[in-house]
Amino acid sequence: ANKTLLMLPGDGIGPEVSRQVRRIIDWMAKRRQVTFEVNEGLVGGAAYDAHGTPLTDETMADAMGADAVLFGAVGGPKWDDLPFAVKPERGLLRLRKDMQLFANLRPALVFEALAEASSLKPELVRGLDILIVRELTGGVYFGEPRGIETLPNGERRGFNTQSYTTSEIVRVAAVAFDLAKKRSNKVHSVEKANVMESGVLWREEVQKLHDAKYAEVELQHMYADNCAMQLVRTPKQFDVIVTDNLFGDILSDCAAMLTGSLGMLPSASLGAPDASGRRKALYEPVHGSAPDIAGRDLANPLAMILSFAMMLRYSFDMDEDADLVEKAVKNVLAGGIRTSDIMSAGAAKVSTTTMGDAIIRELDKL
Amino acid sequence: ANKTLLMLPGDGIGPEVSRQVRRIIDWMAKRRQVTFEVNEGLVGGAAYDAHGTPLTDETMADAMGADAVLFGAVGGPKWDDLPFAVKPERGLLRLRKDMQLFANLRPALVFEALAEASSLKPELVRGLDILIVRELTGGVYFGEPRGIETLPNGERRGFNTQSYTTSEIVRVAAVAFDLAKKRSNKVHSVEKANVMESGVLWREEVQKLHDAKYAEVELQHMYADNCAMQLVRTPKQFDVIVTDNLFGDILSDCAAMLTGSLGMLPSASLGAPDASGRRKALYEPVHGSAPDIAGRDLANPLAMILSFAMMLRYSFDMDEDADLVEKAVKNVLAGGIRTSDIMSAGAAKVSTTTMGDAIIRELDKL
Ligand SMILES: CC(C)[C@H](C(=O)O)[C@@H](O)C(=O)O
Ligand SMILES: CC(C)[C@H](C(=O)O)[C@@H](O)C(=O)O
Repeated sequence: ANKTLLMLPGDGIGPEVSRQVRRIIDWMAKRRQVTFEVNEGLVGGAAYDAHGTPLTDETMADAMGADAVLFGAVGGPKWDDLPFAVKPERGLLRLRKDMQLFANLRPALVFEALAEASSLKPELVRGLDILIVRELTGGVYFGEPRGIETLPNGERRGFNTQSYTTSEIVRVAAVAFDLAKKRSNKVHSVEKANVMESGVLWREEVQKLHDAKYAEVELQHMYADNCAMQLVRTPKQFDVIVTDNLFGDILSDCAAMLTGSLGMLPSASLGAPDASGRRKALYEPVHGSAPDIAGRDLANPLAMILSFAMMLRYSFDMDEDADLVEKAVKNVLAGGIRTSDIMSAGAAKVSTTTMGDAIIRELDKL
Repeated sequence: ANKTLLMLPGDGIGPEVSRQVRRIIDWMAKRRQVTFEVNEGLVGGAAYDAHGTPLTDETMADAMGADAVLFGAVGGPKWDDLPFAVKPERGLLRLRKDMQLFANLRPALVFEALAEASSLKPELVRGLDILIVRELTGGVYFGEPRGIETLPNGERRGFNTQSYTTSEIVRVAAVAFDLAKKRSNKVHSVEKANVMESGVLWREEVQKLHDAKYAEVELQHMYADNCAMQLVRTPKQFDVIVTDNLFGDILSDCAAMLTGSLGMLPSASLGAPDASGRRKALYEPVHGSAPDIAGRDLANPLAMILSFAMMLRYSFDMDEDADLVEKAVKNVLAGGIRTSDIMSAGAAKVSTTTMGDAIIRELDKL
């Protein structure tokens, strides 16, 4: 059976970076005899404009049926003042929740050719390779009760619920430990157990799982505030970091920025394997919709292309093809070709499309 | 009437850095004819060891009666496994809550002599001067319900409540706007209004207050994850940042680390002014208890000394004396004297006590 992909380019630069992935899919059909059946759908502001909702039930059903979802980016000033329930982000949050994509893998990787682009001193980030495993379907993002209420004295009160159960903690921690075993065998588990009971439970359950099944992995617990500090101070002390939805949101963005190449970073959001070993999955670049440069052929398509490579690896076990794509990216960078976000002296500045051309040309050579 | 101070040195390096402040208090009595009546009390692990609680009711009463509280640091491995309710941190949290210290001012300042100590490239941080105003008595730190419960299926669930009311938001935002007017007139208000209703209310109320009373201040709203990124990317874009308790915890630590001199950073936690214009206040260094170097005369006392200077300024309007202390610190640094945490090539490495000596000697000269 064909592999089915749902592409959800979304808003801003989402469509133009997604287009470059389409070209790679075409290349693979021709040169590697791998065909994907690709559907495309609307999400975010684009879906709201067309249908009054950031994600229709039809598109949601398509996502549930697909072997993998490739997501671009959502949001922009045009939709900033929409009511909470139809904000562009709700489309993404619904995909994560309904597909039960509880494990969000966010690599923060410094590309050798780009080490100088970091705002940190190059010796602190050269060779950096952190993997943040962020819990993605629980915590304060989805906890009930939530809302804004009017109090008897006329004031308003906004409230949300941070909530984690044993099984929610254990399943994401297991993903982190398993990944650590294939890397440097070291996990930092991050919470605020000194302040929040949900953090106390998080710490206890991660420790229990470790002692029962992953005793050979080095485990350290760390408070979220300290983790933010340590990321800035000596990022290379980390290998795998596992943390909750909200801390993961902030810390993974901080870690991503350390690399100096946000436009380069992919991510994968994975569900639990079913009986046949297949898991639902969504792949998206870490960068946002960048409305300021949208539609101008300026965006860096490499994060989206590398998200596609992650998909080949995690959803389809196509390690060889994933390697090819990643290698093409490396070679193109080594050749001094840069979009404007990663431009540096002496390099050649190119557009989104020209970067796509360069990747295809490189693939042809490999 | 004498000014009354309560000193709560706490754990780890708390006592030894507090001792250097005592010397400055003595110096002021002799040379500036300013006398403080100083009480000392236990907090954190030290209080737990003596009384089985991280803060006794007596000490709490002393804090309520004092004109200002000087707090060192709490915590350490010795007390890591205590039950949640008697953890060292609970002592600090009770002080904040019962004294209603809702506005936590955390400057992230790069000292000219120390710009090279940052892990960021010096040109990105030289001259950096950010003031984070963190809400300190609300949010998920204190929200109810909270706890760990056992579910019908035998699993456990940990939960906390994020909660903000209109008045809680408005009073801390007003502090931020007022401070911004004396600085660069620019406020970033930080939340996750795209995900949390409490953030939606935060944004709306800050905007309303701005439009009604502070229209001349430049106001920008920013999501917490983006703020973490922007702090790492171009920290100098910020002047005043106002945010909630939990985001403030993480972002202020991130900002503090950008300066490269955590051992230098003071903070103030302020309550609302009473009828006579006096406000309850607690001053503490941003650094923690550093158990690894405690008791070895190695700690940097400057953050504690600068916290004392903040006290002179904010609690007693003694700007001239505060200036003196801050100037002494600057001159000593310019003279190349360093504790080990801020040591650099060519400087003279000194102990906690010798740093204290140097400050007193400098004060004598001023
Ligand atoms: C767009 C937004 C809802 C989302 C989040 O907060 O999770 C984004 O910041 C991310 O990290 O993927
Ligand atoms: C010690 C701890 C409770 C505290 C906090 O989380 O507020 C600390 O990290 C701080 O920032 O002052």
